[in-house]
Amino acid sequence: MSYSALVDHFQQLHHLQHLGAICGWDQATMMPAGGNDARGQALSTLAVLCHQQLQNPRLADWFAAAGQESLSPQQGASLAEMKRAWRDATLLPAELVRQLSLAGSRCEHAWRSLRPANDWAGFLPLFEEVLNLSRQAAQARGEALGLSPYDSMIEKYEPGMHTKELDLLFGEMKTWLPGLIQQVQEKQRGEPLIAPLGPFATDKQRALGLEVMALLGFDFNHGRLDISAHPFCGGVSEDVRITTRYDERDVTQALMGIIHETGHARYEQGLPGQWRGLPVGQARSMGVHESQSLFFEMQLGRHPAFLKRLAPLMERHFGAQPAFAPDNLARLYTRVKPGLIRVDADEITYPAHIMLRYEIERDLINGQLAAKDLPERWDQLMQGYLGLSTKGDYRNGCLQDIHWTDGSFGYFPSYTLGAIYAAQQAAAITRQLGPLGSLITQDPDAIFHWLEGHIWQQASLLDTHRLLEQACGTPPNLDPFKSHLEQRYLA
Amino acid sequence: MSYSALVDHFQQLHHLQHLGAICGWDQATMMPAGGNDARGQALSTLAVLCHQQLQNPRLADWFAAAGQESLSPQQGASLAEMKRAWRDATLLPAELVRQLSLAGSRCEHAWRSLRPANDWAGFLPLFEEVLNLSRQAAQARGEALGLSPYDSMIEKYEPGMHTKELDLLFGEMKTWLPGLIQQVQEKQRGEPLIAPLGPFATDKQRALGLEVMALLGFDFNHGRLDISAHPFCGGVSEDVRITTRYDERDVTQALMGIIHETGHARYEQGLPGQWRGLPVGQARSMGVHESQSLFFEMQLGRHPAFLKRLAPLMERHFGAQPAFAPDNLARLYTRVKPGLIRVDADEITYPAHIMLRYEIERDLINGQLAAKDLPERWDQLMQGYLGLSTKGDYRNGCLQDIHWTDGSFGYFPSYTLGAIYAAQQAAAITRQLGPLGSLITQDPDAIFHWLEGHIWQQASLLDTHRLLEQACGTPPNLDPFKSHLEQRYLA
Repeated sequence: MSYSALVDHFQQLHHLQHLGAICGWDQATMMPAGGNDARGQALSTLAVLCHQQLQNPRLADWFAAAGQESLSPQQGASLAEMKRAWRDATLLPAELVRQLSLAGSRCEHAWRSLRPANDWAGFLPLFEEVLNLSRQAAQARGEALGLSPYDSMIEKYEPGMHTKELDLLFGEMKTWLPGLIQQVQEKQRGEPLIAPLGPFATDKQRALGLEVMALLGFDFNHGRLDISAHPFCGGVSEDVRITTRYDERDVTQALMGIIHETGHARYEQGLPGQWRGLPVGQARSMGVHESQSLFFEMQLGRHPAFLKRLAPLMERHFGAQPAFAPDNLARLYTRVKPGLIRVDADEITYPAHIMLRYEIERDLINGQLAAKDLPERWDQLMQGYLGLSTKGDYRNGCLQDIHWTDGSFGYFPSYTLGAIYAAQQAAAITRQLGPLGSLITQDPDAIFHWLEGHIWQQASLLDTHRLLEQACGTPPNLDPFKSHLEQRYLA
Repeated sequence: MSYSALVDHFQQLHHLQHLGAICGWDQATMMPAGGNDARGQALSTLAVLCHQQLQNPRLADWFAAAGQESLSPQQGASLAEMKRAWRDATLLPAELVRQLSLAGSRCEHAWRSLRPANDWAGFLPLFEEVLNLSRQAAQARGEALGLSPYDSMIEKYEPGMHTKELDLLFGEMKTWLPGLIQQVQEKQRGEPLIAPLGPFATDKQRALGLEVMALLGFDFNHGRLDISAHPFCGGVSEDVRITTRYDERDVTQALMGIIHETGHARYEQGLPGQWRGLPVGQARSMGVHESQSLFFEMQLGRHPAFLKRLAPLMERHFGAQPAFAPDNLARLYTRVKPGLIRVDADEITYPAHIMLRYEIERDLINGQLAAKDLPERWDQLMQGYLGLSTKGDYRNGCLQDIHWTDGSFGYFPSYTLGAIYAAQQAAAITRQLGPLGSLITQDPDAIFHWLEGHIWQQASLLDTHRLLEQACGTPPNLDPFKSHLEQRYLA
């Protein structure tokens, strides 16, 4: 049967990706610096091999034949997802892929020193090359998929999501978000806020983090917590590796980072065993993945009822102090302050950073914005959304993110789509099971059980729109997110 | 050029092996138990892939053409080593390889519970299958290589070493070793011996171990120390991963284990950069590898001058105690006591364990000993060499080692060849640079520099016989080992 030949073939690919995931984790957490060149070469050989696996000429025949075989609806979904992975790996000319990879490495590598040097002029020609090749790739992808160039890039991270829908979502958000940010800042002005008093030893922060992971149901038989410069969730479903970084002066950040990554991890650990190693058994999309990390970090982690459970744990590890009072923790974790840096942004200003990037990358890819005009456009939007100027400050402006340096256009919307989906899920849980606060206090497992059934076990059997409809009653919908923010920050 | 095509091909293979080495290390040190099945599948897919890489049909043409190209003598050696790897991977019928791998996994897996249960009868049929297939493999290898069956198995681990030479070496050793063991025991009877007083906290043992590794020149920019159930040296030359296990009641064992693995590690780290990723750039053989770990553990680590340097370090980490006096440490680390278990054996009784295994596996593979007669033969040799009985005690007798369960016949001699080569190297250093004790005290780097030039940087450019001749003046030669033992244990 051609379908089973495809299953074998994709499972073999998954085994190779498993090795890459573990060696990538090792590179970020364990590897001594001197091992980096050899590791880079080994991983690049693996990437070529995985690509070849997807370009195997027999695949076309197998797909054609499998389409004629009698498959269950779930096998049909599985076949469709294999086809999607195959199509994605084959629709660009090899020479363009090679050029883009080279230009992307070059630009990303240079960016690492150009950003701290605030050197936009040095960055521009490298970026223009990446953008030019990315536009060609988007054009080619778009033609093959019947999508606009930018939509074809979104398709890589959030399949089925298009500019039309994003324009509506972000267009609506734009009407109330800047005002909400203002209102909340006014409300919070003068609110008492006690900063936790450190130092907070790394090993104690780690012990607290492990305890909170256990509280959130992380399965330590299938995963670990380690340290890396940039926190991530890696490994494979059977062995999920999350990381954080500790700052001994601050306990709040690493802790919430661990909660965020635990959300990603539980999604991975909760994916259905019977589809393991196949595209249909993997996480639905970047947006849905982020919805799980943000559900844990924002809906659960910053919920007053959860912070009430957290407070005594913090006291046990670090001794009692006024800053650990639940009310104060809640104020600390919901303080709103517009800033220049996306990754430092709070729950309300973060979507403003994303709206800005969405509008810019959409226009860059569709050819309506030139690379050289990026700083000006950035500054103009930053002024409009957050009232901040980035004139001449490229380092904290348009040079702050790594994403565009290697051509990862189309990824940014996933962050805020995740926040929107998470709010929809929280609203559905509230409707179906009762208020989140009571569940956190009395039956947190009910929340995880809901997520497991409605999101994790669904893997990629449905597209994002149908997944949300089935779980929450509607496709992507901004209302619950708006209500959530208003209730948390204005009530 | 076909030679460069071969170089690319083998470097690509090396990249894949790199991923396998790191993921294997991770499996033994970091992986949560629940990740084991998925890891096993991923590594097995990788093994198949590496095997395919060596069976690529283009290789035969490349080898034929490269033989006609004008190559430097070193490139000639490189070509010969690539050919050896290729030949080794292709000389057995695929079906036999498959059956042997299956039978080996089955027998090894069963052994893990049959050994503690002392169940020889349960083990025998599984072992008979492995032995039967191993004999077929040895026969086929022997025919292809023009060697006797057992010699063709030695060739996998110590190329160029044959039964004829081993019979001479072990035959000679047999004439004096049992007597020496007796003599040393008599001499040591009544010698005062103070046992170190624990507990010795794991983190302090680790700190001491790291300090000793630094003292021995381990390059931490290209390697790490971690914990595993069975200590090993893994990873790749650019990133060498050594492991140990700690027992809080005993500080001496983990420490000497770390010194042993540091010897393996410095060999790997010291291999020549210009041949990286090619067979000729890899360690010469298992015997030569063991000669480096045993040089570090036995020639250096147990040398009175080294223990004099170690003593203050132990005191600094654990506080002073009478047991840490250098003389007492020397007595602790050279105490001779015949025992049933090879891995617990001291420097003098260890070779007796190896002689026994050598004679048995040689006769098993050449068909002169039946599997069912193994326990009797084991007991008879154990009585003869160490005066101990293993009648009915299979667990501590012929069931104690993992090697034969998966068909790794031919490996055992490497351990004692390593001890012999290490003694030759120590003797050569003494002749060329002066007594080891003075060097350890005044200029330990001179020792490492000698090993680097004469062993590490030679990689596989010469065969073992020529390597030793060039470094020490003679091919494998038992005399220095005998002198070393007599001087250390009887003087």
